[in-house]
Amino acid sequence: MSVVELLKEKIRQEGRVISDDVLKVDSFLNHQIDPVLMLKVGEEFARRFAGSAITKVLTVEASGIAVALMTGLSLKVPVVFAKKKQPSTMDGETYCGRVRSFTKEEVIDIVVAGSYLGPEDRVLIIDDFLASGEAARGLLKIITQAGATLVGVGTVIEKVFQTGGEALRDQGIRVESLVQIGSLAGGQIEFLN
Amino acid sequence: MSVVELLKEKIRQEGRVISDDVLKVDSFLNHQIDPVLMLKVGEEFARRFAGSAITKVLTVEASGIAVALMTGLSLKVPVVFAKKKQPSTMDGETYCGRVRSFTKEEVIDIVVAGSYLGPEDRVLIIDDFLASGEAARGLLKIITQAGATLVGVGTVIEKVFQTGGEALRDQGIRVESLVQIGSLAGGQIEFLN
Repeated sequence: MSVVELLKEKIRQEGRVISDDVLKVDSFLNHQIDPVLMLKVGEEFARRFAGSAITKVLTVEASGIAVALMTGLSLKVPVVFAKKKQPSTMDGETYCGRVRSFTKEEVIDIVVAGSYLGPEDRVLIIDDFLASGEAARGLLKIITQAGATLVGVGTVIEKVFQTGGEALRDQGIRVESLVQIGSLAGGQIEFLN
Repeated sequence: MSVVELLKEKIRQEGRVISDDVLKVDSFLNHQIDPVLMLKVGEEFARRFAGSAITKVLTVEASGIAVALMTGLSLKVPVVFAKKKQPSTMDGETYCGRVRSFTKEEVIDIVVAGSYLGPEDRVLIIDDFLASGEAARGLLKIITQAGATLVGVGTVIEKVFQTGGEALRDQGIRVESLVQIGSLAGGQIEFLN
């Protein structure tokens, strides 16, 4: 079974529709994590972005780390995760973006140390969900500040009805989502792929 | 070269002593991550805890996730990461612990959804650092609430002079640290192993 079909089966069996906007899949993706499935997901992103000469995988803590790590393992490149609060041990130059969190109803600043992204980098953004596109936009701002090049965005589940993916594609950004969901209305998960 | 020697070499080359208490290794462990090295670390923990019939790997977001994920991959068991703030999508029963963060100078509550730990679970706690032992104690509280069994604690770097490891071992808990540091005084990293 392909990783896309595996993911859809998991979502059908374990996903819970919390509202018309929120799908909870924390049994395997972002609270409890299925590492073997995550490795397959990472391998699939590596396959899709093969030949793009990626030098770094970039994500934001905490939900994106597992998927990003397995993608970095498959591509054999380092993974950088943007932090949500500047720790006291982070000194020197930093790059910052601002993200509105959909499920936590807050605005947060995300930050990457200047040492870990630079003009020579070709960056793949990886995250668990793509909804409004807020996280990707924050990370894109960080990539721009670093003078690096964005190769594309990979996401496990795209909630297409929240139009973040559409906005990114309209900017000419390559977006690869393994599972596309068209609607969660009435508690029903409508897959588009 | 063994994974312990690889880690020590990385720490010698890239580690920065920020103060007598703080060693910064965010070039490969907890901001930028080296996924291939993390896989080796995960395999080493799986080797050391082989035969312990572990059913879950438990860590706390965000720095512990990479190491925990690779340990879960090697052991072929799910990974659960405690969240630092209860998201609006987390309903139902939860287990909670309280952790004082050393580098961020704050007290935070960590939480695990009730569905992902239970009396049948044999749990391995994994984290990047073991210093005062605050995170491990918070996670241990969660394991106790769930009625689960703690198998042991695995950490990449133990700052032995901060005595968290000693306190855990005094409770009869098995602690495996890949690299043990005896002192950071005067900007010098003193390895004990």
